[in-house]
Amino acid sequence: MLYFESDYTEGAHPRVLARLCETNMEHVSGYGGDKFCESAKAKIREACNTPDADIFFLVGGTQTNRTVIAGLLHPYQGVVAAETGHIAAHEAGAIENSGHKVLPIPQTLGKITADDLTAYLTTFYADDNCDHMVQPGMVYISHPTEYGTLYTKDELAAIHAAAQAYNLPLFIDGARLGYGLASDGTDLSLPEIAQNCDAFYIGGTKVGALCGEAVVFPRGNAPKHFFTTVKQNGALLAKGRLLGVQFDALFTDDLYMRISRHAIECAKKLRALFAEKGYTFFLDTPTNQIFIVLENEQMKRLGEQVKFSFWEPYDAHHTVVRFATSWATDENDIEALAEIL
Amino acid sequence: MLYFESDYTEGAHPRVLARLCETNMEHVSGYGGDKFCESAKAKIREACNTPDADIFFLVGGTQTNRTVIAGLLHPYQGVVAAETGHIAAHEAGAIENSGHKVLPIPQTLGKITADDLTAYLTTFYADDNCDHMVQPGMVYISHPTEYGTLYTKDELAAIHAAAQAYNLPLFIDGARLGYGLASDGTDLSLPEIAQNCDAFYIGGTKVGALCGEAVVFPRGNAPKHFFTTVKQNGALLAKGRLLGVQFDALFTDDLYMRISRHAIECAKKLRALFAEKGYTFFLDTPTNQIFIVLENEQMKRLGEQVKFSFWEPYDAHHTVVRFATSWATDENDIEALAEIL
Amino acid sequence: MLYFESDYTEGAHPRVLARLCETNMEHVSGYGGDKFCESAKAKIREACNTPDADIFFLVGGTQTNRTVIAGLLHPYQGVVAAETGHIAAHEAGAIENSGHKVLPIPQTLGKITADDLTAYLTTFYADDNCDHMVQPGMVYISHPTEYGTLYTKDELAAIHAAAQAYNLPLFIDGARLGYGLASDGTDLSLPEIAQNCDAFYIGGTKVGALCGEAVVFPRGNAPKHFFTTVKQNGALLAKGRLLGVQFDALFTDDLYMRISRHAIECAKKLRALFAEKGYTFFLDTPTNQIFIVLENEQMKRLGEQVKFSFWEPYDAHHTVVRFATSWATDENDIEALAEIL
Amino acid sequence: MLYFESDYTEGAHPRVLARLCETNMEHVSGYGGDKFCESAKAKIREACNTPDADIFFLVGGTQTNRTVIAGLLHPYQGVVAAETGHIAAHEAGAIENSGHKVLPIPQTLGKITADDLTAYLTTFYADDNCDHMVQPGMVYISHPTEYGTLYTKDELAAIHAAAQAYNLPLFIDGARLGYGLASDGTDLSLPEIAQNCDAFYIGGTKVGALCGEAVVFPRGNAPKHFFTTVKQNGALLAKGRLLGVQFDALFTDDLYMRISRHAIECAKKLRALFAEKGYTFFLDTPTNQIFIVLENEQMKRLGEQVKFSFWEPYDAHHTVVRFATSWATDENDIEALAEIL
Repeated sequence: MLYFESDYTEGAHPRVLARLCETNMEHVSGYGGDKFCESAKAKIREACNTPDADIFFLVGGTQTNRTVIAGLLHPYQGVVAAETGHIAAHEAGAIENSGHKVLPIPQTLGKITADDLTAYLTTFYADDNCDHMVQPGMVYISHPTEYGTLYTKDELAAIHAAAQAYNLPLFIDGARLGYGLASDGTDLSLPEIAQNCDAFYIGGTKVGALCGEAVVFPRGNAPKHFFTTVKQNGALLAKGRLLGVQFDALFTDDLYMRISRHAIECAKKLRALFAEKGYTFFLDTPTNQIFIVLENEQMKRLGEQVKFSFWEPYDAHHTVVRFATSWATDENDIEALAEIL
Repeated sequence: MLYFESDYTEGAHPRVLARLCETNMEHVSGYGGDKFCESAKAKIREACNTPDADIFFLVGGTQTNRTVIAGLLHPYQGVVAAETGHIAAHEAGAIENSGHKVLPIPQTLGKITADDLTAYLTTFYADDNCDHMVQPGMVYISHPTEYGTLYTKDELAAIHAAAQAYNLPLFIDGARLGYGLASDGTDLSLPEIAQNCDAFYIGGTKVGALCGEAVVFPRGNAPKHFFTTVKQNGALLAKGRLLGVQFDALFTDDLYMRISRHAIECAKKLRALFAEKGYTFFLDTPTNQIFIVLENEQMKRLGEQVKFSFWEPYDAHHTVVRFATSWATDENDIEALAEIL
Repeated sequence: MLYFESDYTEGAHPRVLARLCETNMEHVSGYGGDKFCESAKAKIREACNTPDADIFFLVGGTQTNRTVIAGLLHPYQGVVAAETGHIAAHEAGAIENSGHKVLPIPQTLGKITADDLTAYLTTFYADDNCDHMVQPGMVYISHPTEYGTLYTKDELAAIHAAAQAYNLPLFIDGARLGYGLASDGTDLSLPEIAQNCDAFYIGGTKVGALCGEAVVFPRGNAPKHFFTTVKQNGALLAKGRLLGVQFDALFTDDLYMRISRHAIECAKKLRALFAEKGYTFFLDTPTNQIFIVLENEQMKRLGEQVKFSFWEPYDAHHTVVRFATSWATDENDIEALAEIL
Repeated sequence: MLYFESDYTEGAHPRVLARLCETNMEHVSGYGGDKFCESAKAKIREACNTPDADIFFLVGGTQTNRTVIAGLLHPYQGVVAAETGHIAAHEAGAIENSGHKVLPIPQTLGKITADDLTAYLTTFYADDNCDHMVQPGMVYISHPTEYGTLYTKDELAAIHAAAQAYNLPLFIDGARLGYGLASDGTDLSLPEIAQNCDAFYIGGTKVGALCGEAVVFPRGNAPKHFFTTVKQNGALLAKGRLLGVQFDALFTDDLYMRISRHAIECAKKLRALFAEKGYTFFLDTPTNQIFIVLENEQMKRLGEQVKFSFWEPYDAHHTVVRFATSWATDENDIEALAEIL
């Protein structure tokens, strides 16, 4: 069986796991006050070129979105997001459960534009009854988006400026951030991400860790008592070392980017392969997810030898499926897939 | 330096870590639908003698309390707990954040009694205005309690019966359950715990795992859509294997109990040591936590060679400190402590 | 000045006010346990032909929507509503503040269809990942809708059946219910409303009362402890008589319907007047709200003599405005308006 | 039958009702933007000697407590209150439902002290683990308290200073404020109340109105977007005039204080009567509530001719009952009671 189902089907990158083993018997304090967390934070601050950043390690993506949003908003505020944003559709109401409305705006392939954001905010505040409605309190985007697409530096800067014009913080969901940073066409580096938003997270779970997301408030701008907010949302680990050690490993010797580049290289090969064989792409993405339209019978046959994931129905006879690569993708599997196709 | 600070200062028990390494490259599905989770659940069902149990793996204790309580209660209900219960005092308002009041009742050394519970419920329902107040919706106890004390089988059965008399489910916080089960004097086995409550969790974080708590609804009585509740509360791991592998290891070859017994043996030696040296016990506990009253100057000197944790001030000149043992406690450290004392 | 701004610009219908004065000095118990509330409930049960109905008097519309929805849903559930539904857009996030997502579906002039509802639910449950998403827990519609449009009996029955097919209760927001029941074309009576849903409310604030909405659970099917839910949501009046007396008056001698018919008669005259004068209707509504497109300069001039309300911009040079009638509309004002137009 | 059951058993003071009738047909805008609300606010600002005060009219007491507290707190904060505070015990979990813990401190006859508050806060912040706990975010007291007792000016100033020392706003629940201000022994005027707190409300429901509480932020210090918070909590009336007209009447010609003084005079007579007849007072209160211990058989007999309210059991043979006076208390009833006693 060949494996392209997702980027979270294996455990941790071997180097991450090795560090967990090497440090296992060291005695450290709990709740993130340990030297591994400190070291990881120092390395992340350097990689982001944000010497004053506040950094918190949380466990998973939905939890991180929920906790950061709860930390940034007042109860009378909502979070502006693409109608396809992960928080809008796929998080079991975690945002609403913490009391906040997701305020959807239009998107194209998962991306919003500064113009649409400005139009939304202008219209909102022009309404005489706007104080009868949820106040926009922040803007959420994901990079890469849920469709694997990327913002350019100019697009991101424009969105940030549009949010700032209304004093709204911009938060970037970076569950797959590495794959965005390693993508061929991108003009956005990690420091530029940090510069063009008010909070973001560096996804670990889908980029080589067993679990873990590193939340960065780039200019020391964490909400007051954010530690308590983290605990209140059930996101604080007693053994905070589990996250510190992993992020310390990921940010040692450029591992986070090496992992990401490997996945991107594999994705490029896959993409070339599908193109060469004449397959239909559902959309064109530069990151580690590839969306292909398969005829249903063909999908069934292929599924006997290859694991991929169902995305959505295309029409009565075709289905969109997703192939994903990761640090764990075996290049031999790509060659084997070439045989099968 | 000698280490008795807490039971979460090291990583995972070596056998648990080894299993994470051995299984690391296996390809499995996400979100807990993997074979490791299935295997761990089967072993836990067997250990609990609850063939129909619903089992969910969550990440940490506060998160688990929050999620289970949110799953069991209606919005107009609160959770009855000892005024010293972990949810009442030490969870940053996680329960209230999910909308529920903690309804405190009296306790002695962390334990409530069936009589006090019945008195509380009788008085509540006797009040003509009781529908103006938060309705009791469940009962929470911890075993061992926050003071390291234990319920007897009769006490637990009586509390369960008192709760059932008012149709309230009984939930047991078992963050340190292993140390309770391995305690010398206890007459409560894991199956008896399961039989005498409606939900409980088997703590992993403090008993050999990197993280993880196994929630058991012993008679297949999980609240409807509890999976969605877990996700909504940010408690669902993409790589659910991390929890499945660990609990599978903990419930293989009796490891969970072997770990617990080691900690209890060490605690007994420590207790004997303190008694022999004439130290004052703050309270008498049969589990892995020992509470000692130290004169403040003595505490300072001892702290230079030994790590323990501050518990609470005793009086102007004395302080209560806690020594904790765990799977990781080195018996040589106990001997070294004997020298120092 | 002529007044067509809204249906809540005057106080109470004189008969309602008179009853408040007549009963003012009677001594009664608080919190709704008084004889006026009992009498009002009996009359509403009879008017609805629902002898077993549970009835609660709340104060305002947003409060009622919030409280009923909080009472009907589990925390992991959301409420399906038209994307233009009052709860979706105009209630300051009251629903989300109580922890629930509004799940929007398409609409035409404020109305949803049974087919769209079924399609939404079918698609939802067909998704393998549906347990990662907010579970639909109930359906909300308004009648009349926010656009003043009405459901037919067949349409309502079909929506109810579609909801029941998935065990979802149907809740009707009747903030302006009287104007729907009194509309010329409608084939829905109050008993038929009651028969074709699981909860609804009879709006008082906009139909002759100073405040007040009567929530009806037609088959004695109020959620358990709904009284406590009402109090918890800040919706319980100490002087419950204020609501009881008003609804008792509204349901004596057919006053509620007489008020409603007067408003509808006035609206018909207004509509005829605008048609005769060649004005453009933004949409065609059978109830007490009329939406007219005005050229902006014309709007300004008209506004000097007539009060109406701004609805939304139409294009750069035109605006949609709303004229509303009520029990308080003076027929002389309509004649005076004819002069002006 | 004689009526001393509570201060909310009749409708509105005749003058308040008269103003509702006189103004009934005036056309005004909704949602509190009307001239009656403006006039009432101006009069309250003058009565409080707070020219810059922000004032909001809400409907009932629990709703007001819930909304003000939700407006003042961040989600990670709780509200410090006497363990007998109305919000702690009698509001059906309205505070917890909005996500906040009530942090109880000791009290005597419903009153807290500045020293106990300071001790609580000092201890809290001295705890190294205080960021694992709910952060105190404000202080709540009631005046008169739930037991009808009163703070002195010095006591209130000291509590305010103790709160300010930790940057915590002080909020006074004034559901029965009038009866406190009119009490014989008090040295606190309305301007002094306003000066010695950060938010308070002037209770209308129990002092002559049909409903309504006026929230005052004395130094223009309302939380941002408090209007939206009011709406989100279901506390905004479409016909805001209902509240504006009533408070305008209550603050015209000193009516609010005249009402309050009448109730206090009646209470004094009652108190003298009970003392003369040798009845046992449960506690000594200077306001409009009198707590008497009755032998149970005596209570039953008296209840056949007089309405009073059950407070709590005293012992197996005695019960504490409450007699309350109000604007509506008839002095003839007191004389009739003298006959009966």
